[in-house]
Amino acid sequence: MKQINASIITIGDELLIGQTIDTNSAWIGQELNKIGVWLKRRVAVGDVWDDIWNALDAESKESDIIIITGGLGPTADDITKPLLCKYFGGKLIVNEEVLAHVKYLFEKVFRRPGPMLESNLKQAEVPDVCTVLHNARGTAPGMWFEKNRKIYASLPGVPHEMKGLMINEMLPRIPKYFELPFIIHRTAFTMGTGESMIAEKIKDFEASLPKHIRLAYLPGYGMVKLRLTAKGDDKEKMEKELDERFSVLKELVTEWLVSDEDENLAMVVQKILKAKNKTIGTAESCTGGYIAHLITSNAGSSAGFKGGIISYANDVKERVLDVTDKTLRTVGAVSEETVRQMVKGAIEKLQVDFVVATSGIMGPDGGTDEKPVGTVWVAVGNKEKIEAVKLAFRFDRERNIELTSNTALNLLRKFILANT
Amino acid sequence: MKQINASIITIGDELLIGQTIDTNSAWIGQELNKIGVWLKRRVAVGDVWDDIWNALDAESKESDIIIITGGLGPTADDITKPLLCKYFGGKLIVNEEVLAHVKYLFEKVFRRPGPMLESNLKQAEVPDVCTVLHNARGTAPGMWFEKNRKIYASLPGVPHEMKGLMINEMLPRIPKYFELPFIIHRTAFTMGTGESMIAEKIKDFEASLPKHIRLAYLPGYGMVKLRLTAKGDDKEKMEKELDERFSVLKELVTEWLVSDEDENLAMVVQKILKAKNKTIGTAESCTGGYIAHLITSNAGSSAGFKGGIISYANDVKERVLDVTDKTLRTVGAVSEETVRQMVKGAIEKLQVDFVVATSGIMGPDGGTDEKPVGTVWVAVGNKEKIEAVKLAFRFDRERNIELTSNTALNLLRKFILANT
Repeated sequence: MKQINASIITIGDELLIGQTIDTNSAWIGQELNKIGVWLKRRVAVGDVWDDIWNALDAESKESDIIIITGGLGPTADDITKPLLCKYFGGKLIVNEEVLAHVKYLFEKVFRRPGPMLESNLKQAEVPDVCTVLHNARGTAPGMWFEKNRKIYASLPGVPHEMKGLMINEMLPRIPKYFELPFIIHRTAFTMGTGESMIAEKIKDFEASLPKHIRLAYLPGYGMVKLRLTAKGDDKEKMEKELDERFSVLKELVTEWLVSDEDENLAMVVQKILKAKNKTIGTAESCTGGYIAHLITSNAGSSAGFKGGIISYANDVKERVLDVTDKTLRTVGAVSEETVRQMVKGAIEKLQVDFVVATSGIMGPDGGTDEKPVGTVWVAVGNKEKIEAVKLAFRFDRERNIELTSNTALNLLRKFILANT
Repeated sequence: MKQINASIITIGDELLIGQTIDTNSAWIGQELNKIGVWLKRRVAVGDVWDDIWNALDAESKESDIIIITGGLGPTADDITKPLLCKYFGGKLIVNEEVLAHVKYLFEKVFRRPGPMLESNLKQAEVPDVCTVLHNARGTAPGMWFEKNRKIYASLPGVPHEMKGLMINEMLPRIPKYFELPFIIHRTAFTMGTGESMIAEKIKDFEASLPKHIRLAYLPGYGMVKLRLTAKGDDKEKMEKELDERFSVLKELVTEWLVSDEDENLAMVVQKILKAKNKTIGTAESCTGGYIAHLITSNAGSSAGFKGGIISYANDVKERVLDVTDKTLRTVGAVSEETVRQMVKGAIEKLQVDFVVATSGIMGPDGGTDEKPVGTVWVAVGNKEKIEAVKLAFRFDRERNIELTSNTALNLLRKFILANT
């Protein structure tokens, strides 16, 4: 079976001047991978006719599927549609269904008063050589072209519109056009050690893998995910083989294993809370609400998470969490005593089973010789017991917030498992 | 003056299978742009010898500066260093300075017990044809190559290591190698209307711009930034001209103007608080701590932000924020009355001048006919006055949290300006 490759071409100056971070490509790569298509290359080019044209030529040589995102907005700097028209040898015509949809969105959904702008009406124009892909979530239609046994699709760059078009239009169509292999993944989610330590531990396992099973290291802030990917034709046989290998891998990394699914840490905690019918709350100082945000980003989090107190200022630590004035005056806000009192106060105020608390110096300012930037105290506990640990990070604020939050959530996870 | 173009080649399967979102490229694009280098293309390829080699060949034809990120980790799947060695015709040798630095990091900074792993020691090997760029933040050194009057640099993919190498090594070196134009930007940050509405309003202005001044639309969640970029040799003349144009632009979008700097919304609020010597707090339900996180992501936020209450569960709204049981029972948590009471309660509990409160249904579940997913109430107020608005969003949870948080912060900004 021939491997089917894809390229993504992302169009827009905003991606090159760095104003926009490209989250679309990662998502598309993940979805293509699931259906057995290998994303071979991602290319970003500016709103420049020749650069877009050359990218189309170049990626046509590399891949069977070329997905173009962006460059379809209503403003003057978008040249993608006329270019596609010329590239595939068609002319722009008004598509009546798209026009009706654009009008419907403006009148019924956006509820914009007055007549529609010329630029919005133009969104209903498409090359007459394409198949229109219905964009239920926005005004810019997707466009599907076929040429020399390859497929090309142009999708809007707005993430939720692009996702809707991928899910509803692209992913169902691609397997009808190409014969695709089965791809199966298994992911071991670890925390508490680094990539090189894991690599050392599993090097014999890694060397023993057959050619059709690949291992990837996927590091994050304070975590490493290990992904095994098998590719082939016989789904049942592959699944059996992959599961056997995965059991061996999990055993090797068992001391660091958080989950054997590809999920986020807050979701792991959420599942534990659901299984044990327990509730949690947060008492955050230096993480400033980020732990609560990680938790509440997951749908269904309200079942286990009741709330949090962000006690950024010392007087809020005192007034809302009952941290004592003496503690703050003698050992300071970044101390074991403070985070222990924060846990105690929050359990009381929020009426929850478990609380995680953080207090530290995230930087870039505020460090001292005794407590340099990156010094953090974390405590987790219930009514009976509180455990506290001191962490030492370095460098930038953003990274310290991420590392502290992930480490704190993992300590909370371990505490809940050990104390229920 | 010749335009100097750059390409970024990002190496790593994790970027193609979608496990990692590429934030590096946006940052590099921004920094290159500031010094007058145009990022022409960004390409991502997997850990495949031929694909990396071909990408180097292809980008050498497009650009003067080729920056390669990733593929330098200690694990077995990284083939970049041997490839670069072959591509530039050198051999791998141990660099004693890098070796000493790697040893120093392991002993003094990471404080890892026991002997170093073989894989870590290998990080001190570099091609003998490169200039080593010192990576103060990690073990993988940067490498600088020159060939046919073009420069190539290989940087680690870990964001804070890459940033350190760019700031300390790359950005000071590039202007010594190429003659670069001056690039000046001005950014108008707007909220409260869409891209197409702004485009309509400023279309004559846009059409009147000379060729050396470009306008870019940079949309975000609930916001659009308008960036004017001028390029040329005579810095003083350019600045004068750009400032004149920028004044006209600001006047045209004045009703939506949040700031005339390229900054984040929370930073705008932070500056206002500092200027007026006022404090704020948050009372979040549906945004689950995200507003507080946006605020505390900025260094120095502790001056104006005292803390927040995340009242996700109704009983926390009652117990901590004094929302009445009657309100919750009759009109429910997603109501004008509730968010007004949340503001009042939080001003009291946190002892702050202003509070912003949110309560809504973020989805995907929990919607009803009367209050569908995306229904949100936001209130802002001080001791004297509280204002509340109802918002209606759609679609996915992540987007609803982002849109609600940005809209709420902007309402808070307006309220503070109108009431101090």
